[in-house]
Amino acid sequence: MKDYQSLLEEIYAQLKSSVGLGQVADYIPALAAVSPDKFAIAIETVDGQQFQVGDAQERFSIQSISKVFNLTLGMKLSGDTLWQRVGVEPSGNPFNSLIQLELNKGIPRNPFINAGALVIIDSLLDSLEQPNKEMLNFVRKLRCQDVFYDDLVAASERETAFTNLALANYMKGQNNLRHAVQDVLEVYCYQCAINMSCAGLARSFLYLANGGVVPASGEVMVASNQAKRINALMMTSGFYDEAGEFAYRVGLPGKSGVGGGIVAVVPGELSIAVWSPELNDHGNSVRGIMALEEFTSLTGRSVF
Amino acid sequence: MKDYQSLLEEIYAQLKSSVGLGQVADYIPALAAVSPDKFAIAIETVDGQQFQVGDAQERFSIQSISKVFNLTLGMKLSGDTLWQRVGVEPSGNPFNSLIQLELNKGIPRNPFINAGALVIIDSLLDSLEQPNKEMLNFVRKLRCQDVFYDDLVAASERETAFTNLALANYMKGQNNLRHAVQDVLEVYCYQCAINMSCAGLARSFLYLANGGVVPASGEVMVASNQAKRINALMMTSGFYDEAGEFAYRVGLPGKSGVGGGIVAVVPGELSIAVWSPELNDHGNSVRGIMALEEFTSLTGRSVF
Amino acid sequence: MKDYQSLLEEIYAQLKSSVGLGQVADYIPALAAVSPDKFAIAIETVDGQQFQVGDAQERFSIQSISKVFNLTLGMKLSGDTLWQRVGVEPSGNPFNSLIQLELNKGIPRNPFINAGALVIIDSLLDSLEQPNKEMLNFVRKLRCQDVFYDDLVAASERETAFTNLALANYMKGQNNLRHAVQDVLEVYCYQCAINMSCAGLARSFLYLANGGVVPASGEVMVASNQAKRINALMMTSGFYDEAGEFAYRVGLPGKSGVGGGIVAVVPGELSIAVWSPELNDHGNSVRGIMALEEFTSLTGRSVF
Amino acid sequence: MKDYQSLLEEIYAQLKSSVGLGQVADYIPALAAVSPDKFAIAIETVDGQQFQVGDAQERFSIQSISKVFNLTLGMKLSGDTLWQRVGVEPSGNPFNSLIQLELNKGIPRNPFINAGALVIIDSLLDSLEQPNKEMLNFVRKLRCQDVFYDDLVAASERETAFTNLALANYMKGQNNLRHAVQDVLEVYCYQCAINMSCAGLARSFLYLANGGVVPASGEVMVASNQAKRINALMMTSGFYDEAGEFAYRVGLPGKSGVGGGIVAVVPGELSIAVWSPELNDHGNSVRGIMALEEFTSLTGRSVF
Repeated sequence: MKDYQSLLEEIYAQLKSSVGLGQVADYIPALAAVSPDKFAIAIETVDGQQFQVGDAQERFSIQSISKVFNLTLGMKLSGDTLWQRVGVEPSGNPFNSLIQLELNKGIPRNPFINAGALVIIDSLLDSLEQPNKEMLNFVRKLRCQDVFYDDLVAASERETAFTNLALANYMKGQNNLRHAVQDVLEVYCYQCAINMSCAGLARSFLYLANGGVVPASGEVMVASNQAKRINALMMTSGFYDEAGEFAYRVGLPGKSGVGGGIVAVVPGELSIAVWSPELNDHGNSVRGIMALEEFTSLTGRSVF
Repeated sequence: MKDYQSLLEEIYAQLKSSVGLGQVADYIPALAAVSPDKFAIAIETVDGQQFQVGDAQERFSIQSISKVFNLTLGMKLSGDTLWQRVGVEPSGNPFNSLIQLELNKGIPRNPFINAGALVIIDSLLDSLEQPNKEMLNFVRKLRCQDVFYDDLVAASERETAFTNLALANYMKGQNNLRHAVQDVLEVYCYQCAINMSCAGLARSFLYLANGGVVPASGEVMVASNQAKRINALMMTSGFYDEAGEFAYRVGLPGKSGVGGGIVAVVPGELSIAVWSPELNDHGNSVRGIMALEEFTSLTGRSVF
Repeated sequence: MKDYQSLLEEIYAQLKSSVGLGQVADYIPALAAVSPDKFAIAIETVDGQQFQVGDAQERFSIQSISKVFNLTLGMKLSGDTLWQRVGVEPSGNPFNSLIQLELNKGIPRNPFINAGALVIIDSLLDSLEQPNKEMLNFVRKLRCQDVFYDDLVAASERETAFTNLALANYMKGQNNLRHAVQDVLEVYCYQCAINMSCAGLARSFLYLANGGVVPASGEVMVASNQAKRINALMMTSGFYDEAGEFAYRVGLPGKSGVGGGIVAVVPGELSIAVWSPELNDHGNSVRGIMALEEFTSLTGRSVF
Repeated sequence: MKDYQSLLEEIYAQLKSSVGLGQVADYIPALAAVSPDKFAIAIETVDGQQFQVGDAQERFSIQSISKVFNLTLGMKLSGDTLWQRVGVEPSGNPFNSLIQLELNKGIPRNPFINAGALVIIDSLLDSLEQPNKEMLNFVRKLRCQDVFYDDLVAASERETAFTNLALANYMKGQNNLRHAVQDVLEVYCYQCAINMSCAGLARSFLYLANGGVVPASGEVMVASNQAKRINALMMTSGFYDEAGEFAYRVGLPGKSGVGGGIVAVVPGELSIAVWSPELNDHGNSVRGIMALEEFTSLTGRSVF
């Protein structure tokens, strides 16, 4: 058995003072107020072991990481029909660009750019009456109880959602949104406002390291080939405009959020989450990437 | 003195049966219901003579032609500060494209593409409490009393305004819209729903043939160099993606609308309006352009 | 009869010290070496009167102004079939952009952006064995004898023609160039290297003020509707990314070159050329536009 | 030890009649003449075992697969300075698009789109006098002797290279190409014209499954972190506009060519090559992807 605990402590000690290398997200007050010193790493293995360092029990805003949960639920509910409305290819453009969306006549390139996430949420509204509530249930089925919506963050997201409204309205005009723009956006803003801890995040992503099955319960969240699809999408499109760089430096499928969280999976073995609020120019946690790079370098766990 | 009456009758007779060459706009029911046979031409000279043929007293939806009134009012109220928020160059793109808007960071290329018109309306909201009412007053000062809003058309515009909402929200996110998107759009939809007759349209545009001054009243609607600016903008950008073709075939500054109206001015002399609902692929009245081309060919009134 | 001579002298005196407001083109040595003080204005009327001030007899590099001669010759030789290969609409993009060319599958938006000029030259090669020699003959038929190629400029153009080679090769790959890229580019570089005087330029453009006919000889260079087409194209696309601004400030169809020359026509009456090497950010002569603006303001000759 | 031989035979039998599902590349005669029936799969493991079925000893045109060899040699010669001139992110655009290249001011998104490959070759010319000869030496160091240039293919590539010439000239104009466009293109066309067998391809890629070291000789072709970089680039950008789909269906880093070849690596274990000339709309071998998908499904070798 690996001694991941001492490994995490080593990485933590090494990077503890690596502060001031990026910028805490400041487009909404609730994110801007987070201390740049926050730092946590958590691992959970498919056989149930847990390893943590730093602020791993403190909840933070997972932001875009929730797009993975939405996608999972959407694939479960809609199956492959989803791919008629959203692509599976990297975008080569910022996450909120309208250019590519217009060139592709309203079909987003993948489910992790904002336009794609809006389409996924639109698909959820086909079958779910209370999607926000269902999403919490979904995460709790992933054995993470400590998950909440931050109403303040959701409200701020709503107030600054102009580009997302532009994307949603454009897609509505191109008949790629079935529900009212306001309804889709309301859920979207709440999904960006999910608070979880680093430990909870590691635990909740275990199903993607385990072929779609929650190890602790045996519950099938999604078929194994769908889990593979999600991992492939995280690898090619999970880091905004920095997917290629992350694939090189870390070499694991993962997803980041502007709250400073990153979660990644080693298929068959474990999931690992980091939290450090300072972001690089691409919107990804500076220290988070450094920590994960150390992890895969020291363990040889990169898929490459 | 020119005998414009017999000239109009000649053109009317020649083009009366030119139906079936285009498509009546059908994106909203109120426009789709208009008979493709409608046809009118009206001239009014700066010295007060009026000439008309066909359905010249029947009101129709002037649609984008109202962008000229909005621009005039905007220039009067805001002066040259307007040009910090909207350009004066042709767009080389469809009237509702988001691509150029994103490349130009939310600054529309000119006031006649939809994004530009939205910015102009936003500027009106700075000073006008009841912009729709003011607009009717404005047109009435142009000596055209027979002007109304069509609530049905305005409501339909609102229901199909997704791309305009995308443009407006994108500009809001880029800080190029000061007022609430919904407020701007509400006025925009009403401006698209102005009903005027062909004769009224010819009369109302006389100020642009007369250096900004309404001939009948002597009232200065806009400074003479501003009138020149508006004429230059109509020449280079007044016909969506067909400005170059119109400049060649007709050779007058003018503006069209998807209701099938076109109005043009011969600076110093007259204004001329046509109405025929069938549109070409660029959204301009097929028979309207033919009639104006005949007019400038027979009279040598093209500026070229 | 107008006393244009005293008018030109007035404008000249007023603007003589307006130096240092722009940058002399420096992408090739032969242009960079021209003194920024050079300044000339020349008028020639359709009835043969000539008016000049400043360095009006000194030859300079007319650069893109020659695109008008090429277009004229191309329209004469190929007629309307030209418009299957090049558009007539403003571009809304820099003169050498590849983006629009790719979006439009290799069809340039108009004959005055570089891609369009390359297509025109390609069409000339269909019928002309010695296009460069023919072009000099053409200009001489316009009653301007003092016209030469500057081999040094042509050679420099060839050495820095990478973006033009990109445009030409892309169009070749899209089957919109019939002749070898090198052959087309060779002629293109020579056309950019035509030297004429300001007085010669004014004289040579008279046919466009006179329905396609050279006033002094009565020779028909191009049909009258083709002359109208060229004037319309100059109005909407003759000034790179500044056509709308020029239409407003000057209000005449015209064409500029990065050598600091601008020529414009008052249809039915005269043509006017200016030369002043300092350029604004759009590549148009700063003082040239100021001089033309003064001319149309003082004479009321703007078409608007 | 795995019995890969019977596995390959099973996949081969299953897909043998899967012909007619795509189109053999026909832009040059030498490729169009290849029989659509050709089919081969070859595996070589890092411990030297070889497994083959079908036409695995027949040489074919590896086309873009050679971009991986070029990149490897370029990284070895230039190190990380390469990344100042070419990116590491997926492009989200066709492999030969000029749009993104202009938006990014001449910096290609990654080394596997054509523009990126041209930059890599330009970098090789800095240090290599005979790059084509060196490339053969390079491949022979990978223990594949059976490698040749097909002069006929190289000549055809040269004749149809207009879009590549457009890309190269544009980058030259943006100062991102140091050597003459013709020199870079000449080498590029030869690199597209490398002929290797499926078995040879599998063998030659083993260094990427082995941390940059050729297993048979122990020679270090590239540092281990550089090998990881190449694998990451193949995963995110190795399949033109279908990288995301390939990542899902196959889940291995790999590279395809329009000759119908695909090669992929299972890091630490083996490399696998397939050859089947019929291509899908994205330019990737239809049956090749099917075969690799079967391989990773049956063996669980997908990295996801």
